[in-house]
Amino acid sequence: MKVKKEIRDELLKRLLVAPGKRVSLKKDFDPSWKPRNLDKKRAAAMLQDGVSLLAEQQDKLYAQDRYSLLVVLQALDAAGKDGTIKHVMSGINPQGCQVYSFKVPTSEELDHDYLWRSAKALPERGRIGIFNRSYYEEVLVARVHPEILQRQKLPPGSIDNKIWSRRFDEINNWERYLVNNGTKIVKIFLYVSKAEQKKRFLERIEMPEKNWKFSSADARERGFWNDYIAAYDACLRRTSTKWAPWYVVPADYKPFARLCAAFLIHDALRSLKLAYPEVSDQQRQELKKAKAILESE
Amino acid sequence: MKVKKEIRDELLKRLLVAPGKRVSLKKDFDPSWKPRNLDKKRAAAMLQDGVSLLAEQQDKLYAQDRYSLLVVLQALDAAGKDGTIKHVMSGINPQGCQVYSFKVPTSEELDHDYLWRSAKALPERGRIGIFNRSYYEEVLVARVHPEILQRQKLPPGSIDNKIWSRRFDEINNWERYLVNNGTKIVKIFLYVSKAEQKKRFLERIEMPEKNWKFSSADARERGFWNDYIAAYDACLRRTSTKWAPWYVVPADYKPFARLCAAFLIHDALRSLKLAYPEVSDQQRQELKKAKAILESE
Repeated sequence: MKVKKEIRDELLKRLLVAPGKRVSLKKDFDPSWKPRNLDKKRAAAMLQDGVSLLAEQQDKLYAQDRYSLLVVLQALDAAGKDGTIKHVMSGINPQGCQVYSFKVPTSEELDHDYLWRSAKALPERGRIGIFNRSYYEEVLVARVHPEILQRQKLPPGSIDNKIWSRRFDEINNWERYLVNNGTKIVKIFLYVSKAEQKKRFLERIEMPEKNWKFSSADARERGFWNDYIAAYDACLRRTSTKWAPWYVVPADYKPFARLCAAFLIHDALRSLKLAYPEVSDQQRQELKKAKAILESE
Repeated sequence: MKVKKEIRDELLKRLLVAPGKRVSLKKDFDPSWKPRNLDKKRAAAMLQDGVSLLAEQQDKLYAQDRYSLLVVLQALDAAGKDGTIKHVMSGINPQGCQVYSFKVPTSEELDHDYLWRSAKALPERGRIGIFNRSYYEEVLVARVHPEILQRQKLPPGSIDNKIWSRRFDEINNWERYLVNNGTKIVKIFLYVSKAEQKKRFLERIEMPEKNWKFSSADARERGFWNDYIAAYDACLRRTSTKWAPWYVVPADYKPFARLCAAFLIHDALRSLKLAYPEVSDQQRQELKKAKAILESE
């Protein structure tokens, strides 16, 4: 986005989970942080600019048809994943953008390894793919509720005390493979505070048109807050890599969270140095010929 | 869209291919037609309104999670399919919208019946699916270039002079089945004139940033213009049905074509009388309980 390089670098540094660093969400990140002078109106104007710039990059990504971008969006409930997708990615040509929301695995999916369904849903070259929740649930919800592992038909003996560490390695290796083969990966954790989640849950309960977004299971999961934070801490420490870093976006103030997401996605695309495909000499000859035919009609 | 009922009815009537009618594109439709007082600025403002209304309907479609909408977009080259998708569907939440562009069938696809790959790409309940080209190519390009049928591994004897008639019936039956089971279908033919196509081809040749959109095959296909129009005539006559009607949108003036597409898609959604899901008594009880728990924290 049209922000000065210093500001950009500063923001990136602030959101990044430095690879190898023993981060702690509680100590190192503040879910309510936002720039001092950012009000709603200013954020909306900046987001609009940002989305236009994103759309430009995406047009090139699509035309060039060489790289793809995978955006992994993780969060606790009511952190604003759906709203972020809506506000950041509306305005993007849907022809080059696909959103995949992962639900409880089907029986077919359980008959495969845990990355299988994610591999199937990866964006094609030229496209942006958004994972609304992702394979990271396999080291988050599955860690908080280990009974989930029992349903995964894993080889005997593989559910041991090293399973999370192994999964981190497996995920890192898989992501490295994807990056090596042309998929850029941006991982965003929308970090909402427990107080703000409560406020949003109550809103969903009180506003009839938001009722459908709330299930009592959400309230139950809230009881595992500390377990989730611990699972995220471990996950961020072990899977923020040079090739696929994690960013922690403060999510208590939605306008800023959306701006950060747009900024991170744009930054990832920019780093690919995208360009419209160049026309080869042979193609140029063909264009000339086609032009002559059309003009002689 | 916020257009008067009379104008809406008039426009629908004008674009509709009346089921059972022996239409002819040449006689019954004018690719350059547009309302007298519609300039670019006015069209852009109307489109913006239209897209907002579309977004509202789509939000309900997604929340209700009962119906899906399939938009079939067909056209000759350079009629503006990609631009229509971009301008009409940008602004729609990509979480509830997927675009599928059909290319030359893969060998896996050729090992199946001709509707198989389309069935796989259908939108889930709650979503809008746009087919950028579609199974209709099976009675269009395959009819203009019948050698395509030879690659389809059809049963011996099935490539006879009744194949197109059979395919029309098969498509009608399949669409009826989809409609019966909750998929609303809108079929749009963007009708561009031969002169306007020439103009747009030359533009793609002359503007370097548009070069990638042009291939000399496009110019070759133009040589089959009359065959395509004849194939479309037959197709529109036989597959515009009460349950899945065809609309012919004049495509020489892009702003109007986009407006028509937005209008038709919105009208289809409106006809579903979508509403946010109602909360059952049991769910209401659960909401109350969850509220009490949250407030007592």
